[in-house]
Amino acid sequence: MAERIAAPIPVGLVGVTGYTGMELTRVLAGHPDLKLVRATSRSEAGRSLAELYPYLSGPGELGRMGALTVTQPDAEDLAKACALVFLAVPHKTAQEIASALIKRGVKVVDLSADFRLRDKETYEKWYATPHTEAGLLAEAVYGLPELYRAEMAGARLIANPGCYPTSAILGLAPALEAGLVHTGDIVIDAKSGASGAGRKASVGTLFCEVSDTFRAYNLTRHRHTPEIEQEVSLLAGAQVALSFNTHLLPVNRGILSTIYTRLKKPMSAREAHAVYAERYAGEPLVRVLPLGTLPETRWVRGTMFCDIGLAVDERIGRLIILSAIDNLCRGASGQAVAGANLMLGLPETQGLPLAPLMP
Amino acid sequence: MAERIAAPIPVGLVGVTGYTGMELTRVLAGHPDLKLVRATSRSEAGRSLAELYPYLSGPGELGRMGALTVTQPDAEDLAKACALVFLAVPHKTAQEIASALIKRGVKVVDLSADFRLRDKETYEKWYATPHTEAGLLAEAVYGLPELYRAEMAGARLIANPGCYPTSAILGLAPALEAGLVHTGDIVIDAKSGASGAGRKASVGTLFCEVSDTFRAYNLTRHRHTPEIEQEVSLLAGAQVALSFNTHLLPVNRGILSTIYTRLKKPMSAREAHAVYAERYAGEPLVRVLPLGTLPETRWVRGTMFCDIGLAVDERIGRLIILSAIDNLCRGASGQAVAGANLMLGLPETQGLPLAPLMP
Amino acid sequence: MAERIAAPIPVGLVGVTGYTGMELTRVLAGHPDLKLVRATSRSEAGRSLAELYPYLSGPGELGRMGALTVTQPDAEDLAKACALVFLAVPHKTAQEIASALIKRGVKVVDLSADFRLRDKETYEKWYATPHTEAGLLAEAVYGLPELYRAEMAGARLIANPGCYPTSAILGLAPALEAGLVHTGDIVIDAKSGASGAGRKASVGTLFCEVSDTFRAYNLTRHRHTPEIEQEVSLLAGAQVALSFNTHLLPVNRGILSTIYTRLKKPMSAREAHAVYAERYAGEPLVRVLPLGTLPETRWVRGTMFCDIGLAVDERIGRLIILSAIDNLCRGASGQAVAGANLMLGLPETQGLPLAPLMP
Amino acid sequence: MAERIAAPIPVGLVGVTGYTGMELTRVLAGHPDLKLVRATSRSEAGRSLAELYPYLSGPGELGRMGALTVTQPDAEDLAKACALVFLAVPHKTAQEIASALIKRGVKVVDLSADFRLRDKETYEKWYATPHTEAGLLAEAVYGLPELYRAEMAGARLIANPGCYPTSAILGLAPALEAGLVHTGDIVIDAKSGASGAGRKASVGTLFCEVSDTFRAYNLTRHRHTPEIEQEVSLLAGAQVALSFNTHLLPVNRGILSTIYTRLKKPMSAREAHAVYAERYAGEPLVRVLPLGTLPETRWVRGTMFCDIGLAVDERIGRLIILSAIDNLCRGASGQAVAGANLMLGLPETQGLPLAPLMP
Repeated sequence: MAERIAAPIPVGLVGVTGYTGMELTRVLAGHPDLKLVRATSRSEAGRSLAELYPYLSGPGELGRMGALTVTQPDAEDLAKACALVFLAVPHKTAQEIASALIKRGVKVVDLSADFRLRDKETYEKWYATPHTEAGLLAEAVYGLPELYRAEMAGARLIANPGCYPTSAILGLAPALEAGLVHTGDIVIDAKSGASGAGRKASVGTLFCEVSDTFRAYNLTRHRHTPEIEQEVSLLAGAQVALSFNTHLLPVNRGILSTIYTRLKKPMSAREAHAVYAERYAGEPLVRVLPLGTLPETRWVRGTMFCDIGLAVDERIGRLIILSAIDNLCRGASGQAVAGANLMLGLPETQGLPLAPLMP
Repeated sequence: MAERIAAPIPVGLVGVTGYTGMELTRVLAGHPDLKLVRATSRSEAGRSLAELYPYLSGPGELGRMGALTVTQPDAEDLAKACALVFLAVPHKTAQEIASALIKRGVKVVDLSADFRLRDKETYEKWYATPHTEAGLLAEAVYGLPELYRAEMAGARLIANPGCYPTSAILGLAPALEAGLVHTGDIVIDAKSGASGAGRKASVGTLFCEVSDTFRAYNLTRHRHTPEIEQEVSLLAGAQVALSFNTHLLPVNRGILSTIYTRLKKPMSAREAHAVYAERYAGEPLVRVLPLGTLPETRWVRGTMFCDIGLAVDERIGRLIILSAIDNLCRGASGQAVAGANLMLGLPETQGLPLAPLMP
Repeated sequence: MAERIAAPIPVGLVGVTGYTGMELTRVLAGHPDLKLVRATSRSEAGRSLAELYPYLSGPGELGRMGALTVTQPDAEDLAKACALVFLAVPHKTAQEIASALIKRGVKVVDLSADFRLRDKETYEKWYATPHTEAGLLAEAVYGLPELYRAEMAGARLIANPGCYPTSAILGLAPALEAGLVHTGDIVIDAKSGASGAGRKASVGTLFCEVSDTFRAYNLTRHRHTPEIEQEVSLLAGAQVALSFNTHLLPVNRGILSTIYTRLKKPMSAREAHAVYAERYAGEPLVRVLPLGTLPETRWVRGTMFCDIGLAVDERIGRLIILSAIDNLCRGASGQAVAGANLMLGLPETQGLPLAPLMP
Repeated sequence: MAERIAAPIPVGLVGVTGYTGMELTRVLAGHPDLKLVRATSRSEAGRSLAELYPYLSGPGELGRMGALTVTQPDAEDLAKACALVFLAVPHKTAQEIASALIKRGVKVVDLSADFRLRDKETYEKWYATPHTEAGLLAEAVYGLPELYRAEMAGARLIANPGCYPTSAILGLAPALEAGLVHTGDIVIDAKSGASGAGRKASVGTLFCEVSDTFRAYNLTRHRHTPEIEQEVSLLAGAQVALSFNTHLLPVNRGILSTIYTRLKKPMSAREAHAVYAERYAGEPLVRVLPLGTLPETRWVRGTMFCDIGLAVDERIGRLIILSAIDNLCRGASGQAVAGANLMLGLPETQGLPLAPLMP
């Protein structure tokens, strides 16, 4: 379906059984111009979406989506039915499907990690698997609107950013662009809700293993490290190696990154805040909170906002940046829809002015 | 502001500091035809809404609402500015404000208990305070669309149903209307999330007193008992006294009522299900789940749906009804907006096709 | 090891990978007279317990247990090393092991359901599998000390009660023994923490599927139903069929059963309370809370207590009984240790005066 | 009561209404040599402890404590009845009571911040109130056994360490003592459960404000900063200023501090681990986890353990230390009992070999 078509624009979703797939259905249910017409899953083909997700019922768009029959992923069929396809499958699997779809003229937003790292070798080292689509790798656009809005609009393939990187990069961008901080002394202490671990059966993410407790994981070797370093280095104009460390929160959704940097020269919190406020003044989906207000993950729950708060520890010359997102919405499916909007010529925030669910 | 005005219709909110006030701003943020122009609070007047709720910021309607200055509640001012006012203040307080507003031609949706009980004496007994607006009591319409849609459309004053009663009444209505069950043997075992307890400082609802634990409260004397019995008796065509008991769940939102009834004559689950499915076939905001599927509070999180599931224990002749709602949305502010929609001549579900936040 | 041996008495645990196995190590760590000398698991044999459970380290008994090497379950080896063995394996598996151990003179406390139902056919119907140890079934003692203390002391095989049945039976016993309530109108609305679902990888009990939500499950067909009915019928002196229904709480531990009964004749809460207080006056592990106080699962967290609260709804003649236990301790491993104590001639509560963890 | 008395040794608790008071009763319930004979509270005097805390009932020590009548705090009475008194009252209040008790020959363990900072001016600056007991300030011993065991044994007054400082100091001590890391580049990213905020009624710590969300608070100005810097400077032999930042976890108990340091010279994780293992080899209450294992707050739930895990990010030369404690037990009341043990000539860990509650 190479030709441009009128709204509602038919889109597909490959991989419907995970939390990002579920979140995409939620976002699309309220989107005025995109219409989910295909949902695929190798394991669930033949069932209706409502059988998988009984909450996809009722009148209107929820019920219409619920009535969709899950199909086997088939590039030919997807290409016939869809103008754009979201890939919510594991990395490696995404490479092949992306290639098959793009060859058939379908736009693709890939939510996996397959096209995020520009450097093939870095990918192969951190993901321990060959990359077989080097051509597409070169072409893919990193789908963070605040950095790549223009490129995204013309892209055939968007690499949807990782959840942690979204929070970290948006948190660091103004400080690095303005040269406020040393690039050699950055520590990102990130905390994520359990939906970030996905929806596969696993003892480690059972309720009783996550509730009422807290732990770090994957210290010094989380796969989002090279992705963050790649974008941060571009922003800094120099190769940056930083300390990125992750923790598991007993919450469903939400990432809070506490980012520790060292100021190049003394600066008040007010001055730092002014830099951030100016950088994001025109951005609809980033909120620089008033000085003295620190972000909370619930304030972005279910939304596209990245909320940023700042503190300066004048005693020791550190700028501390707090960056909060909803890992499933801004950090995955919502951002994917923003990318789709741009690729399809729609307003970037179409269907995305979501209010947080409080409490 | 007695005359009918064009959309967006200006509305006010008296009592903005509680969870129902917060939820109303969320629902209104996505409503195409209602516009919040007044938000009042005795304790917070003079501050902006965003100072109270930093998440009310950003571009668009969220930010516009956040910029609203909280005012003292003043019937004169509210009447000048608003076509309709929502009251989210404690019972007793609501009586006076409702009266002052209605005298000035403003429509009122009262979220308190003040106008729910048709019988003045019952009110005074259960709420231990005199009712001073007997005239309005006679006029008020109980705002459950599935029962009183037509009356609501013509009302000046809607008594927005309580959260527990919404789930209980919708759960029982089909069985009682169809005469399936004995009216003398009804037990409602209800469980609610902590937002139902309100947003006042209190040791009993601190995180550490609610998290990782479970308890019953107010057994045999919850104030929603006469409200449920009032409506259930009307449905049954006979005076019903039932057992209504409440528990506190360690969740933010959500009510699940497990309702135990005794069948008048043997009936399969399939037959009972057919009665429910038929009764609610045309209802946009009630979902009778497929046989074998039981509701979960998360499936209605943030939505207007009342999800209903059924089981029949054939060994002992009992019909068990499960009814789930979001206590803040369907059980309070969302339902209040449905009432406002009807009073203002808008479609009942305008602004309310909300998809659940999963997970 | 048929002969009686001096303290510390060596005991074994078959099935160490689940929550009941974990809880047993916690209880045994503080027991002055029992010493865990064998821990078996087909899947984990060869590893140390501390590799499985890193918290089993440090000085003293915790560290000693952590250093134990997990072995393959082997009746011969267990019989040589242990005076008593706890079985924490799935039903059906337990039958064979129990038989092999008892033949070798080892006492057995079986935490599975295999020996709880006295009637072979009832077992086979509800568990859908043949029972191959009818002889042992006849001999097994149901391990609820408040009902079978004397029989337990002389038993070779104790069938450790299910978690729900423990709370339900203890809640109902005084009312039934005293003939206060009708046996034909009993509804048990039970709610359990997620550890009751076990520690196997499963999508349904992932954190994101349980947290911040609530649901019923297995309505009208939970396998604990016949177990409750069996014991309740004995207490009532008549065949009782009751309504038993279960819900999943977003908490780690804890069961609260809300039990609805109908009084045979009018009775005040004070009178009902006196019956309960007298029945349990000498019981060290049941606490009848003062009138007006209702149990909370956290008050029994980590303990052997069954806390009971009462309410009478005089308007409709119902006695409501609330019964709270810790499903892993009183409802499984702690009660198993009480059983072992009795079988081994130790004081019933040896090692079990556990204080609740609050909050 | 200046003279030494035989076990059980009578002790008192001033301030029984908070979580540390509650935790102290839990710990004392299992202590073989200490006996709570006084519990005071200005607001609750005259009631029994069991009226405040219904879980303090049952046979044995729990019930005996529950039967204690809460009294007004009265130094004379406390001195007559107790050999040692625990102060669980707010800072400032503690100063006067401590002085009055010590004058009367009673040993004191103060759980407030009043005697933790050796420097009067630092105290007055961070706590914004005068310190009126400079003499006692000079005498008080900082109650961290791993650093001050000998001094504690001879003390009349122990300043019980803060919860965050306990985790931070134990985490940093080996690295600083061995000179592994730069003292000018230390970042402590600390996360605490909600019980750390105390048990006073407050909107900010209501269940619905803490559950399913995450936030930082008090950045750059938490009052535990000077306490940590004081002890860390002593360990490093140089004045240290560090970045200490706190976050609120939706869990009841537990602190995890992620501590970022910069290595003076390249070092493998194995080498760093050896330094830690050696430093804490003889310590009964610190567990250096095996390399590759990271601490979880639940592994120390209800216990006195400080669990430490290590990672080295060789790419950037950082040693990352993870330190987990139970903020109420190791971080408050349990550590206070360890201090009392030492002051009273009992073994340090008497009554404290507590196993974690899992899950």
